[in-house]
Amino acid sequence: MIILVINCGSSSIKYQVFKIEGENYSLLAKGIAERIGEDGSFIKHTKTGEETLKIEKHLADHKETMQAIQPLLTDPVHGVIKSMNDINGIGHRVVQGGEKFTASTIINDEVLDTIKEMSKFAPLHNPHNITGILSCQQVLPDIPNVAVFDTAIHQTMPPKAYMYAIPLKYYKEGGIRRYGFHGTSHGYVSKEAARVLGKPLDECKIITCHIGNGGSITAFDHGKVVDTSMGLTPLEGIVMGTRCGDIDPAAVLYLQDHYGLTAKQTDDILNKESGLKGLVGTPDMRDVLKMAKAGNQDAVNALAIYRYRIRKYIGAYLAALNGADAVVFTAGVGENNDTLRFDILSNMEYCGIKIDSDRNIAGETVISSDDSKIKIMVIPTNEELVIARDTYRILSEV
Amino acid sequence: MIILVINCGSSSIKYQVFKIEGENYSLLAKGIAERIGEDGSFIKHTKTGEETLKIEKHLADHKETMQAIQPLLTDPVHGVIKSMNDINGIGHRVVQGGEKFTASTIINDEVLDTIKEMSKFAPLHNPHNITGILSCQQVLPDIPNVAVFDTAIHQTMPPKAYMYAIPLKYYKEGGIRRYGFHGTSHGYVSKEAARVLGKPLDECKIITCHIGNGGSITAFDHGKVVDTSMGLTPLEGIVMGTRCGDIDPAAVLYLQDHYGLTAKQTDDILNKESGLKGLVGTPDMRDVLKMAKAGNQDAVNALAIYRYRIRKYIGAYLAALNGADAVVFTAGVGENNDTLRFDILSNMEYCGIKIDSDRNIAGETVISSDDSKIKIMVIPTNEELVIARDTYRILSEV
Repeated sequence: MIILVINCGSSSIKYQVFKIEGENYSLLAKGIAERIGEDGSFIKHTKTGEETLKIEKHLADHKETMQAIQPLLTDPVHGVIKSMNDINGIGHRVVQGGEKFTASTIINDEVLDTIKEMSKFAPLHNPHNITGILSCQQVLPDIPNVAVFDTAIHQTMPPKAYMYAIPLKYYKEGGIRRYGFHGTSHGYVSKEAARVLGKPLDECKIITCHIGNGGSITAFDHGKVVDTSMGLTPLEGIVMGTRCGDIDPAAVLYLQDHYGLTAKQTDDILNKESGLKGLVGTPDMRDVLKMAKAGNQDAVNALAIYRYRIRKYIGAYLAALNGADAVVFTAGVGENNDTLRFDILSNMEYCGIKIDSDRNIAGETVISSDDSKIKIMVIPTNEELVIARDTYRILSEV
Repeated sequence: MIILVINCGSSSIKYQVFKIEGENYSLLAKGIAERIGEDGSFIKHTKTGEETLKIEKHLADHKETMQAIQPLLTDPVHGVIKSMNDINGIGHRVVQGGEKFTASTIINDEVLDTIKEMSKFAPLHNPHNITGILSCQQVLPDIPNVAVFDTAIHQTMPPKAYMYAIPLKYYKEGGIRRYGFHGTSHGYVSKEAARVLGKPLDECKIITCHIGNGGSITAFDHGKVVDTSMGLTPLEGIVMGTRCGDIDPAAVLYLQDHYGLTAKQTDDILNKESGLKGLVGTPDMRDVLKMAKAGNQDAVNALAIYRYRIRKYIGAYLAALNGADAVVFTAGVGENNDTLRFDILSNMEYCGIKIDSDRNIAGETVISSDDSKIKIMVIPTNEELVIARDTYRILSEV
């Protein structure tokens, strides 16, 4: 089957084309359209094994962008399919699926309505995911669409992990609870970690650390999610590029009250102006590392906070799980930042974790010592592959 | 020296009279005035070793209450001193001392001004503490007053523990950071735990769990606080009687926005209507336990959430400290609720914690097995004694 994967943001569309049969897959092409609806919009398209093509082109909206991507996919030289009809299905990343979706699902009107309803909890994400789905339905009306939710895998959490201690009606009537995100990534690397451990996933206790510009940490017990650091929204949890992560809830209201901000302005500060950006001025970990190396004390402090919070989450989940088989790092920062991994997991003798400095710097898959009770791993994530595989599986079952 | 300890709330004054010489002390009397400024106000007074006396009396304000307490203290039968001039000093509990106070201090105008300024972070507490101090200054003008801060001991935290990942100016200009509370209690039980361990405090790693109607958990490294669960205000951290503890900061704003609440109303919900009260309808752990025993599912869930969050904090601090010498439970719930302690610290083999079921039920001081790597203790707290001792020490040095 040929599967197109779509990840639609406010002014961007990321796409990948997979060929999948059973467990086998190959990535045929990938690309990104950026600055949609803005000046200077463009598409970068890469056929696997070839150089990236950059096409500068005015892209008025997402529908027009989908139309502009088509000829690239079917181009005799740079394309990978003969006609759009060769595509068997389109898999869409959808951020917030609420409690209704515990797995990926084929998209119909009812599903679309629920995704729309869940926009209330993910106003920065779901509306764009919906735009992507509608654009595909309009431009490619005969191809089935599948929704793959960031939240679905986390629906196995027990109430003690997903409930907030606020008046019960806000959960029962309002759906306010922990949902968790990055589900495709956590799911993917947990499966890969079980493979490396040589054990069935459902016998494994694994802590997965997805640390990119956004970041979250998830605890798997017997292969099922039992806790995760992001909450109702992707703001809760560890410190991120521009998001504050955990903070005294009263500080949120104090900030608002004392500085005369609206709730929306406060939300923007905590989501867009905080995290590394708030502490150092840039959300980019690579810049923060450079500044810290050059002696910038704010950058040094920010790194210490950032790492310490991750260490505390790992510690909390070790207690939740009563130990673990593996702690896994993934995503941009987690995969590439060896000093971060070293700082987080050094001096953990109390639970038998021993990081191997050489393996860590070399970026091996297993970076713990042979006598570490808990294996530490670095596993590159592949969220698009999960979306493609889920789409393949669902369409195979239809 | 005779030391009077005062803990002043919005409509109550708690007092204790200590006789202290060096390390020796005796509690001479204690009492509480309640419903100050309301109908049905009264004072309960207990001379040590005697029955409690209840005096129903209209108490218009805190000054009048201080005046009403005096004859009880000097009463030939129920009193413990001949005249108020026998009192050498008055120690006051002050909740929020900010960054300025790293230890207890004698109260002068400048100190009082700073306590007033810090009311912005503790509007429910500091103003009443100030009322108590002013009442004493008016009624007993010749007796020195000492402020003992909930926050002082926590000032040894490193930036990675006390800073929030929000724009730096809010800390630098606005003082928004983690302060921590219950300092006198955490300090007292950490010292007692070191005594039980038979080691100098400054060689100990200790996690203290103060779990009462309010609750917080503190990590001590080399005898100094390095982290604590309460934050800018006493709202952050574990689930409490009426406080929510940790929650997605965006959920705070969603709640406000979606339900059309003001910041103040939202703060009231999270501080006064949440926690056990929000989940079960009552803030009282004893009632929640009874309801859970009778099969009430909300109560069962609430207990699971409550305990799980404490377990996660202990786990996080074990990671922060790289293990610990002791985990200590104190305050109303922590001292008296053996099922809570058992649930929180069972199945912790990963770090070598082994709770002894019999010792736990018997309420012994050390409730871990002899082969537990980390000792678990139950130590009754005594915040008033800390206040009395600090007052004694400071007045001895003058």
